[in-house]
Amino acid sequence: MSKPSLARGTRDFGPAQMAKRNYIFDTIRRIFQRYGFQPIETPAIENLSVLMGKYGDEGDQLLFKILNSGNFAEGLTEAQWQEGYKKLTLKVSEKGLRYDLTVPFARFVVMNRSDLVMPFKRYQIQPVWRADRPQRGRYREFYQCDADVVGTDSLLCEAEIVLMIHEVLRGLGVMDFTVKINNRKILSGIAEIIGAPGQEGPMCVAIDKLDKIGKEKVEQELLERGFSAEAIEKLQPIYELANNQTAIFDNLRQWLAGSEIGSKGVAELEEVWTKVTNFGLPSPQLQLDVTLARGLSYYTGAIFEVKANGVQMGSISGGGRYDNLTGTFGMPGLSGVGISFGVDRIYDVMEELKLFPENQSITTQVMITNFDADAEAYGLGVLRQLREAGINAELYPDASKLKKQFDYADRKRIPYVLIIGSEEIQTGVLSLKNMHSGEQQKLTLAEILGNFV
Amino acid sequence: MSKPSLARGTRDFGPAQMAKRNYIFDTIRRIFQRYGFQPIETPAIENLSVLMGKYGDEGDQLLFKILNSGNFAEGLTEAQWQEGYKKLTLKVSEKGLRYDLTVPFARFVVMNRSDLVMPFKRYQIQPVWRADRPQRGRYREFYQCDADVVGTDSLLCEAEIVLMIHEVLRGLGVMDFTVKINNRKILSGIAEIIGAPGQEGPMCVAIDKLDKIGKEKVEQELLERGFSAEAIEKLQPIYELANNQTAIFDNLRQWLAGSEIGSKGVAELEEVWTKVTNFGLPSPQLQLDVTLARGLSYYTGAIFEVKANGVQMGSISGGGRYDNLTGTFGMPGLSGVGISFGVDRIYDVMEELKLFPENQSITTQVMITNFDADAEAYGLGVLRQLREAGINAELYPDASKLKKQFDYADRKRIPYVLIIGSEEIQTGVLSLKNMHSGEQQKLTLAEILGNFV
Repeated sequence: MSKPSLARGTRDFGPAQMAKRNYIFDTIRRIFQRYGFQPIETPAIENLSVLMGKYGDEGDQLLFKILNSGNFAEGLTEAQWQEGYKKLTLKVSEKGLRYDLTVPFARFVVMNRSDLVMPFKRYQIQPVWRADRPQRGRYREFYQCDADVVGTDSLLCEAEIVLMIHEVLRGLGVMDFTVKINNRKILSGIAEIIGAPGQEGPMCVAIDKLDKIGKEKVEQELLERGFSAEAIEKLQPIYELANNQTAIFDNLRQWLAGSEIGSKGVAELEEVWTKVTNFGLPSPQLQLDVTLARGLSYYTGAIFEVKANGVQMGSISGGGRYDNLTGTFGMPGLSGVGISFGVDRIYDVMEELKLFPENQSITTQVMITNFDADAEAYGLGVLRQLREAGINAELYPDASKLKKQFDYADRKRIPYVLIIGSEEIQTGVLSLKNMHSGEQQKLTLAEILGNFV
Repeated sequence: MSKPSLARGTRDFGPAQMAKRNYIFDTIRRIFQRYGFQPIETPAIENLSVLMGKYGDEGDQLLFKILNSGNFAEGLTEAQWQEGYKKLTLKVSEKGLRYDLTVPFARFVVMNRSDLVMPFKRYQIQPVWRADRPQRGRYREFYQCDADVVGTDSLLCEAEIVLMIHEVLRGLGVMDFTVKINNRKILSGIAEIIGAPGQEGPMCVAIDKLDKIGKEKVEQELLERGFSAEAIEKLQPIYELANNQTAIFDNLRQWLAGSEIGSKGVAELEEVWTKVTNFGLPSPQLQLDVTLARGLSYYTGAIFEVKANGVQMGSISGGGRYDNLTGTFGMPGLSGVGISFGVDRIYDVMEELKLFPENQSITTQVMITNFDADAEAYGLGVLRQLREAGINAELYPDASKLKKQFDYADRKRIPYVLIIGSEEIQTGVLSLKNMHSGEQQKLTLAEILGNFV
């Protein structure tokens, strides 16, 4: 007999939270489908050969690994035990839990290449697991909602992602947000222009901290990371571009005129802008942010990040274009672009801004009281007819005191209670109590059914 | 560069399978809600202290265990390595994957006891994991759909479960099925009557094989399991009862008249029958099966099992009443009753009987062709209006050859293609092609929007 507990960093969701979470999932799912994305699901358990080496060393550490079944220690020598846990891990474990939805998607595409209609537009809404240190807003098990297009490098896909982000957030009532967009090619171009080609990685790590530590300390870090004083001097325009959106494309185009790749990045972003405009999206909340990098990782073109304004919260959505996602599985040259929504953060934003609609809870609409065996027998027939009319209904399971029954309805937020006693059975006129107003009406079953349609 | 593979016993679900699976999930969810059940979700990862010892020795072996993060081998001595893998497991692993939805539900109830409205009716639709040997129809990761009521011993709950099973299966178009029902108390009563009180466990193991090995071999097994010749002789009526439903309650009541618990079991089942009748369920497909035991495990009252007739397939649903589910977590005396639907088997039954509706796939309804930049710009505005009208729509992302675009629409089973070229832009009259009939109509956008509403 032990007092049970949740595993660290995991959560239960009760009915009230489920209703709110489903409200978010349903909105995202509806809009993904509206844009022509089709659902897939992949297993939670993947071979470690699929997962390892895809998320960097830190990611490999944060993967939840599953102990081999049966005698996992069989045949291991003392020398192998002593070798250190990293090597040992692969001897006692060959499977792990999904870390994100992107790598399993890449595996899916490669394994189903001959059946898929390209360009393939898929969405996927499933939990992922990371052995991260839990903290406020960071969990070890959480949902991702991803939509990706693979098999085309058309910039229409980037524009569609910008549109989808707007529709999802506006659909949820989150009206004040900013979709930041950048392009890996612009970052490569900047690195070229300042005389540090290929160094956009370390450059971005430093610049990413601009908001937090200010320009002076960013420049100090750049120096420490091996950038020359000349390069740092040539980087000056970036601070202006980061803060001033006026004529930003002209300024950027001019600055990067000497870099082919940089110019291509600017042209790509301009084309995305044009397509968004052609679509007629009302008041786009889109901002070119030349400092946006999102760790670069596998992005090769557009980079997206979304923040809710007026709320203390990290990005609620992010994504970008990658040109070689499936290359690691032996299928090179497949370009794709995708976006991921973080449901937990969106949930917190919506709670803080009080954006969840009232009465979202999935509950019974009508509860029938239970007076005694006769009333119950009569009530069962009424119950059937309510349900046949599509009304969520239940009959209180015991002939308990009425107060207890009403208390149940009240706490379960059931809006209507149907009182059936001997008088009601004789007359066929039932008493329907509105639990919100307290008002009680005498109605026939036909009238009640009519009320709910 | 490795050729990727799925972990053994796991599956991907592509868009076509997702549509069919969602059809099943949506039906089950709708009916659970119709009956007043509310959704909860629990994490995939649970502490092993919650999971171990709940499913018997075999279950403990079949639990997927998660290797501790970081240096899991730290501080382990050689002696501990040598101790055998079972003891070692608990030193390198403290978490595991959910094995069913019942134990996590019991944990949830205990941890949230003060917030829950009793009786608490919850449903839960989530995957579970078992390190079983994979075979046809048996997977290591599969979904369960459970509905349980806890906090009441009212037999109305049993009747409601019988009703729900009927509504779910009929709702899915599975019309020929049998809901078998029994009661643990009847089995206990039979054991008493034959002079082997408390021996219903081994008795059921033998009798369960009646269909497969015949009466003679069942009796031989009973003998081997220590039942006396006299007990076996006294068990004769069970074979008659197993095959003949006529006056079964009378016969059973008469047979078990000398056993208090047995008589109580018969009375309970009769009450369930009465309530089902009072509800007015048309043509109940309900059968009292005195040999039904479902391994007994934690069942203390009703036991359910559902089979689809005319299909070679194990049970597609099962459940029962348990009186002490939460006792193991320090909360004794909470009675509950539940049912679990096996989606994978229901899926296979529906495939075999061709019960899935046509055109279930979640896909785009209208695809707009992409001739050139001008047509695309015009098409984007049309696209927005289609989507605003609630139509799932997409614009082909590249100005590829039309044949390729139509091929895409065809393979993605998109029912309508909207052709927009220079003529269409000038006149505002668009060409809508029905991909099924091949028919092509000239329509304004307003007319098209009207067609789809």
